[in-house]
Amino acid sequence: MPTNIPVVENILNANDRLAQENQARIDAAGVFSINIIASPGAGKTSLIEQTLPLLKDKLRVAVVDGDIATSIDADRAAQAGALASIQVNTGGDCHLDAVMLRGALEQLDLTQFDLLIVENVGNLVCPANFKLGTHKTVLVASVPEGDDKPYKYPGTYRGVDALIINKVDLLPYVNFRMDYFQQGVQVLNPGVTTFPLSCRTGEGLAAWVGWLVQNAKK
Amino acid sequence: MPTNIPVVENILNANDRLAQENQARIDAAGVFSINIIASPGAGKTSLIEQTLPLLKDKLRVAVVDGDIATSIDADRAAQAGALASIQVNTGGDCHLDAVMLRGALEQLDLTQFDLLIVENVGNLVCPANFKLGTHKTVLVASVPEGDDKPYKYPGTYRGVDALIINKVDLLPYVNFRMDYFQQGVQVLNPGVTTFPLSCRTGEGLAAWVGWLVQNAKK
Repeated sequence: MPTNIPVVENILNANDRLAQENQARIDAAGVFSINIIASPGAGKTSLIEQTLPLLKDKLRVAVVDGDIATSIDADRAAQAGALASIQVNTGGDCHLDAVMLRGALEQLDLTQFDLLIVENVGNLVCPANFKLGTHKTVLVASVPEGDDKPYKYPGTYRGVDALIINKVDLLPYVNFRMDYFQQGVQVLNPGVTTFPLSCRTGEGLAAWVGWLVQNAKK
Repeated sequence: MPTNIPVVENILNANDRLAQENQARIDAAGVFSINIIASPGAGKTSLIEQTLPLLKDKLRVAVVDGDIATSIDADRAAQAGALASIQVNTGGDCHLDAVMLRGALEQLDLTQFDLLIVENVGNLVCPANFKLGTHKTVLVASVPEGDDKPYKYPGTYRGVDALIINKVDLLPYVNFRMDYFQQGVQVLNPGVTTFPLSCRTGEGLAAWVGWLVQNAKK
C-alpha cells in the first residue's frame, strides 16, 4: 500500500504548531497573555507605558516587544514598571511569529508573572496571520488613522478579541465618524469588547485595566 | 565545461525584472510616476485627494490604488479629479508588487497622462521591499504616529526619494519632537526632499505640488 508522505510542510501550519507549544508553556505557568497588534504609531507602546503603573501591586507583568530595529519599546516598558522586558528585533521581518516568541519565552521564568504582554511589530496586515500562542489578540486602532480602517483591513478586525480605540482626545481635531467606524467593526466582529481611551489624558484606561485584571485572575 | 543553471529564481529578482519592464513602459509614454507608501491612516488617500484639484489644468493624472479590500480609495481619487483611477485589491497581500502594477498599467493608455500616482497598501514595512517600476518613492509620515518612526523603520526611511510629514496641524495636540524625528531621517537619508504639510488645512501643499509639476515637466 502506498503511503503519502507530505514533503513540503505549510509554513503557517508549522507556525501554528509552535504557537500551541507556546500556549501550553504559558498555561502551565498560569499566566494570562495578550498579543497587541496595530498600525505603526497607533499607540501600542504608549498603552503599555500607561497601563503598567495602573497594574502595580495587582499583577506581575512581563513584556515582549517586537520591532524591526531598536530597543526603544522594551526600554520604555522597563521604565514603566515591567518586571521583565525583552526586545525581539525581527531583522526586517514585518511581524512576530511563534518561533520568535518561543525564543523570548525561553529567557523568562514564566512562573514569576501573572500577565504577559506581547507587543507585535507595527503593521496592520501581517501580524494577524501569525498566531503566537497568546490567549487574546488586542487590536489598537487610533482616531487619527481614520474611520475607514475596519473596511480596509477586514481580516485584522475580524480576528481580534478586544479592540482599543486610542487617541480619543484628538476627536475634535480630525474627521472621524465614530458611528461609521463602529458599524464596520460590528459587521466584522459583532459584540467585540471595545475600549475607547486616550493614553495621553488617561480617559478610559480604567475599563481596559479592569479587563486585564479580570482575565488574569480567572 | 560545466554550465551553471540556476534552478530556483529569487522572487525579488523576478519582481525587479518586471519592475524594469513597467518602468520602460512608463518611460516610453513620457509619464512621471510615483509610488506612495505609508502606515495605514497616515493620509495617502487624503494627500491624493487634496493634490488632484491643485494639478488641474497642469497635469493629467492617473491613479492606481492598492488595498487589501474595498475600492474606497480609487473612488475618492476619481471624485477628486483623476482622469483614470484603478483599484487593485491584493486579496490579503500586504503590499503591491510589479505584477499587480503591470495588470493595472495594461488597463491604461499611458500616453494620455503626465503623472501616474500609485498608492500602495498601508504598511510601513513590506511595500519598501517590492519595486514597482515607478520613478520615485514617496513616504508619507504623519505627526500623530510619533517621532520615533525613522528609528524603528530604518529600511523604509532609507529607501525613499521624498518624505511628506502630514498632519502638522496636530502638532499642538501630540508629543512630537520635530528635531528628533528629523535627526533620525537625516542619518538614514541625508538631504532627502521633505514636505511638512497638512491635508486638512492645506498648509504646505503648494511646495509638494510644485515638486510634482517640476518632475513631470522634465
